Amino acid sequence: MESLSEFEGEVVAVNPNHEEVLGFASYGGVDDVPGEIDLAVVAVPPDAVVGVVETLGERGVVNVVVVTAGFSEAGGDGAERERELVGAAREHSLNLVGPNCIGVVSTPTKLNATFGPDSPVEGSVSFMSQSGAFITAAVDWANDEGMGFRHVVSLGNKAVLDETDFVEAWGEDEGTNVVVGYLEGIEDGGEFVRTARRVTREKETPVVLVKSGRTEAGARAVSSHTGTLAGTEKAYEAAFRKAGIVRAHNTEELFDFARALDTLPLPDEDGVAVVTNAGGPGVMATDAVGDSSLSLAEFEDTTYDALDDALPDAAAFYNPVDVLGDAPAERFEDAVSIALDDPNVGACLVIACPTATFDFDALAESIVETAEGTDVPVVAALMGGEATKEARSKLSEGGVPSYFDPARGVRSLDAVAGYRNAKEREIGEVREFEVDHEKARSILERGREDGRLGVEATPLLDAYGIPTPKGEVVETQDEAERVAEKIGGEVVMKIVSPDILHKSDIGGVKVGVAREDVRDAYEDLVSRARSYQPDAELLGVQVQEMVEVDEGVETIVGFNRDPQFGPLVMFGLGGIFVEVFEDTSFGVAPVADAEAREMVNSVESSPLLRGARGREPVDTEAVVETVERVSALATDFPAILELDINPLVATPEGVSAVDLRLTLDPEEL
Amino acid sequence: MESLSEFEGEVVAVNPNHEEVLGFASYGGVDDVPGEIDLAVVAVPPDAVVGVVETLGERGVVNVVVVTAGFSEAGGDGAERERELVGAAREHSLNLVGPNCIGVVSTPTKLNATFGPDSPVEGSVSFMSQSGAFITAAVDWANDEGMGFRHVVSLGNKAVLDETDFVEAWGEDEGTNVVVGYLEGIEDGGEFVRTARRVTREKETPVVLVKSGRTEAGARAVSSHTGTLAGTEKAYEAAFRKAGIVRAHNTEELFDFARALDTLPLPDEDGVAVVTNAGGPGVMATDAVGDSSLSLAEFEDTTYDALDDALPDAAAFYNPVDVLGDAPAERFEDAVSIALDDPNVGACLVIACPTATFDFDALAESIVETAEGTDVPVVAALMGGEATKEARSKLSEGGVPSYFDPARGVRSLDAVAGYRNAKEREIGEVREFEVDHEKARSILERGREDGRLGVEATPLLDAYGIPTPKGEVVETQDEAERVAEKIGGEVVMKIVSPDILHKSDIGGVKVGVAREDVRDAYEDLVSRARSYQPDAELLGVQVQEMVEVDEGVETIVGFNRDPQFGPLVMFGLGGIFVEVFEDTSFGVAPVADAEAREMVNSVESSPLLRGARGREPVDTEAVVETVERVSALATDFPAILELDINPLVATPEGVSAVDLRLTLDPEEL
Repeated sequence: MESLSEFEGEVVAVNPNHEEVLGFASYGGVDDVPGEIDLAVVAVPPDAVVGVVETLGERGVVNVVVVTAGFSEAGGDGAERERELVGAAREHSLNLVGPNCIGVVSTPTKLNATFGPDSPVEGSVSFMSQSGAFITAAVDWANDEGMGFRHVVSLGNKAVLDETDFVEAWGEDEGTNVVVGYLEGIEDGGEFVRTARRVTREKETPVVLVKSGRTEAGARAVSSHTGTLAGTEKAYEAAFRKAGIVRAHNTEELFDFARALDTLPLPDEDGVAVVTNAGGPGVMATDAVGDSSLSLAEFEDTTYDALDDALPDAAAFYNPVDVLGDAPAERFEDAVSIALDDPNVGACLVIACPTATFDFDALAESIVETAEGTDVPVVAALMGGEATKEARSKLSEGGVPSYFDPARGVRSLDAVAGYRNAKEREIGEVREFEVDHEKARSILERGREDGRLGVEATPLLDAYGIPTPKGEVVETQDEAERVAEKIGGEVVMKIVSPDILHKSDIGGVKVGVAREDVRDAYEDLVSRARSYQPDAELLGVQVQEMVEVDEGVETIVGFNRDPQFGPLVMFGLGGIFVEVFEDTSFGVAPVADAEAREMVNSVESSPLLRGARGREPVDTEAVVETVERVSALATDFPAILELDINPLVATPEGVSAVDLRLTLDPEEL
Repeated sequence: MESLSEFEGEVVAVNPNHEEVLGFASYGGVDDVPGEIDLAVVAVPPDAVVGVVETLGERGVVNVVVVTAGFSEAGGDGAERERELVGAAREHSLNLVGPNCIGVVSTPTKLNATFGPDSPVEGSVSFMSQSGAFITAAVDWANDEGMGFRHVVSLGNKAVLDETDFVEAWGEDEGTNVVVGYLEGIEDGGEFVRTARRVTREKETPVVLVKSGRTEAGARAVSSHTGTLAGTEKAYEAAFRKAGIVRAHNTEELFDFARALDTLPLPDEDGVAVVTNAGGPGVMATDAVGDSSLSLAEFEDTTYDALDDALPDAAAFYNPVDVLGDAPAERFEDAVSIALDDPNVGACLVIACPTATFDFDALAESIVETAEGTDVPVVAALMGGEATKEARSKLSEGGVPSYFDPARGVRSLDAVAGYRNAKEREIGEVREFEVDHEKARSILERGREDGRLGVEATPLLDAYGIPTPKGEVVETQDEAERVAEKIGGEVVMKIVSPDILHKSDIGGVKVGVAREDVRDAYEDLVSRARSYQPDAELLGVQVQEMVEVDEGVETIVGFNRDPQFGPLVMFGLGGIFVEVFEDTSFGVAPVADAEAREMVNSVESSPLLRGARGREPVDTEAVVETVERVSALATDFPAILELDINPLVATPEGVSAVDLRLTLDPEEL
């Protein structure tokens, strides 16, 4: 551990065979070490790890890093060894990092307890990674870019301490401005969301993550790499949104976003001012703004006037402001200052291309000075190679992120605005509804044997206050007539069988049955079911009030259970919208009211709910409430593995759950 | 022009006031210069430019670069000056670049006739740019990255030579491997598409372009920057696809893609092999593959066996292949060679993270050697800063593109595969249909006065062989009855008026009118129209065969005219699909058969045509043919500015154009 040579504390080795290790005094055993031990780094053979950790625990050492590999990642014996390690750590309440990691770094004390080749410079970004190699790569690259770190942790197998612990600790750490992480999975999804949300919102510490395994191919690679059962991408998306995480999609974004969030103030407005000495790159930057959630700032008249006074006639005063190819740094400075004074400008991008006479260093100095005097974020694109090197260092030292490609600057500003939005996003309250637990449980009991229920479980929805059409499941023609009479008018009749999943396919649904036809319809439905699937268990026939689907919009509300985040509530518009367009939105339960509203409004087809094509808007609040009530059902009954209300018909007057399917884990009942 | 000091030819100045300019001998006038002049660079005041160019033309100089600004980009007098310049150039058949440009570079002769600060190194990428500053920026950056250029042209105002000329010339140039361009607009869209298509397909020279002004904000910036009337983004997309252009969205992509296409062979397969010494970055690369059009290669069993033999037990043999953190360069080499032998591997990405002992230089040498011996494209991600510098230079010299971020490597491979797809893409033939021009023209004549026609122009579609429902426009109740009788069964009746655009909104459409109700319906439609819009011109009532919309799928086929690419044919599914989802596809006319098929199949909602949700598939070939026939109509009649068949109802039996709207430019008739 050559990297420890600069460490400001004392380092000793423990090794029975040597009196000195890498120049550090070595002791025969942990108990021989004099004084207090703040941190122990364990790098002994796998078989010896648990014993060493126990000894450390008995000696009163609290902080332990286990570098050694050969635990759960190796399968077989390794998994058992990891269980023992966790046991030992729990017994002594250890803060244990690893095993199977490259160690930890803490720059304020110049501690580098890793076997990576480089030490990072000091900074205010704390970085955790489930890939040790990614740490060595990032540190080498960051040193080059002048980017510093505060704490760096190689998470390894996350046997004891995991991402949630570090998000929590770094959220409390005054010296950490931004938490950055590379993760392949999350240990306890619910706990992570609650913790990260507190850190991003209350502690105002941004958390930027790459979660790999986003794509199908990536998810397969994750599970073969770490053996982690990957949660679905939809669940991660919903959970990260709820937690206020800034998500990066690749390495470049991870550190660009981290750096921007580390050094830049949060913008008050979404308008970006672009000041450039070249029209073309100005247009490219504008396209990048068009691709982002930001917009090009529209200046006040006074701003145009001021630019007109300050710039030559041939300059462009409209945003992007083109200060022209012959502009010296002072002209840039004038234009930037004027733009920053405009109340519509929330962020500023300065673009400079090389010309025969241009002085990048002078520009860098002026940008740093300007940026120090404003609470508007300023970034720079210095579009050149060698000619810009010195200037880019100056900007970096002065806390102004700079790039070659203006589009990267815009994406970084977008990430900063994205964090502001996440922090300010209204989540609302998780509403408490009056529900009939007992009734719900008794309905679910009926599915104990088959592990699934269909439309016959409609009373479950009634118990949770979700409107359903009038109707009953009947087992005789007489009953069918009685129910039809009670409902009045034409009715819908459906075969009810846990074994027939696609009722329509076998003609198992009759719509608009007149009273006089109810007996025949009953008989016909039953005989169809018998001839189509003779071994199907028939529970009867559902006789249901006609819901005027044509006047409403068919929606789907449901949930399933994600292995990492638990119940994941889904909303979408029925039929082709879900099936062909996959136009759905997701929320991690418990879904709060504002969240449910966002889910309903965020599907692309949502204009149909609001009355597209000249129709009356449906009662979207009733849809929103149904999403919340389904979330409550998911939270209250872990036994329900999956549930779909399809369709939930929404009309201007409200909603009606016309059909329903669910699967159960009887052991959880 | 210090940059000319290395030029291998002779340079003289022409300036009446000096005997020497920048060390070059100076003559009093063009006519005083002895010998032949290959190229003249004009940098005199704007007022003097046309005179100088005329003198040059008279003297027999063919190649002229006008650097001077103050032409059309300056408006007013400048525009007039540019017209005169074009006149002079035409008169003497000059190859004129500019005006308002920074000049041209040709590295084989070390000619740098620009006022940019740097000269590029020699290479095989030829680069044109509508932004001069972008050239200086790119050259400075490329010098740093070890990327060379062959020809570089600052297009300026494109008064004479434009992008099409350079695509054509560089397509013929043996020394140019890739044409790269930054464009804000295209002068002659049709000519550009034909030329670029020939170059990308027949000459097999890839063309990579950034077309800025992609977004709404960007398009506004373009038009204020260059005064160019921007064509729509949809038209550019369609035109570039037809032309086989590889499109880049920002600076980084432009040069990454250019470099990859310059140095890499085209892949035969879409499967990518990833070989890495670090699991995490391997997963990130896999996600990038998932984001691309490529896929992760599935190895043959023999490949797994060979990897098993070659690698340590703990290595991962499944793709991504993890050679482990302790891998020396040789182990990488073994794994890469084995992967390249697999027939499913079309491309290979090598990822290396720094470790305490890793030798990046040795890896670079081995990759270069391996890449030389294969026709599979190989790229590398060396994930570090300083530690990787030397190795990256080695890779660059050896023709292997390398990156820090593996995702960038994957995107570059994707661009190379994208060019292969574009080159091989089936465009098909522009079919000739038997049409009745005269009849079509006579129908269009009826719109001369109003400049627009509605459903009364249905015979226009008949003339172009597009099926329409039986029916006629009538002006009396008697006629209505007669037509209804001839059609038989129930009919649809619609008010016909050029002034009533949304017929349904005023109850101007009656569906399913029985024969006995035809007289009343006629009267009712007319009186509704009169009371709703008393000043509307009424052309009569359309009595039309009922088309069973419920059994079919409503589609929309139409076109408008793009200022740069001419007729742009549109296809989409009717109603919400176009209105809410904007789910449309576009083609530049003339649309060939395979192109039309691609248009129909590429909308997201196309599964509905193929029989989603248990319905019978519609006759998509009839839809495809309608797209082609509409394309023919657009090409034949420039007078039709816009036309929409909405809906074109498609059923399993064919199509029927139920309604129609068009606008005309009577002057073109």
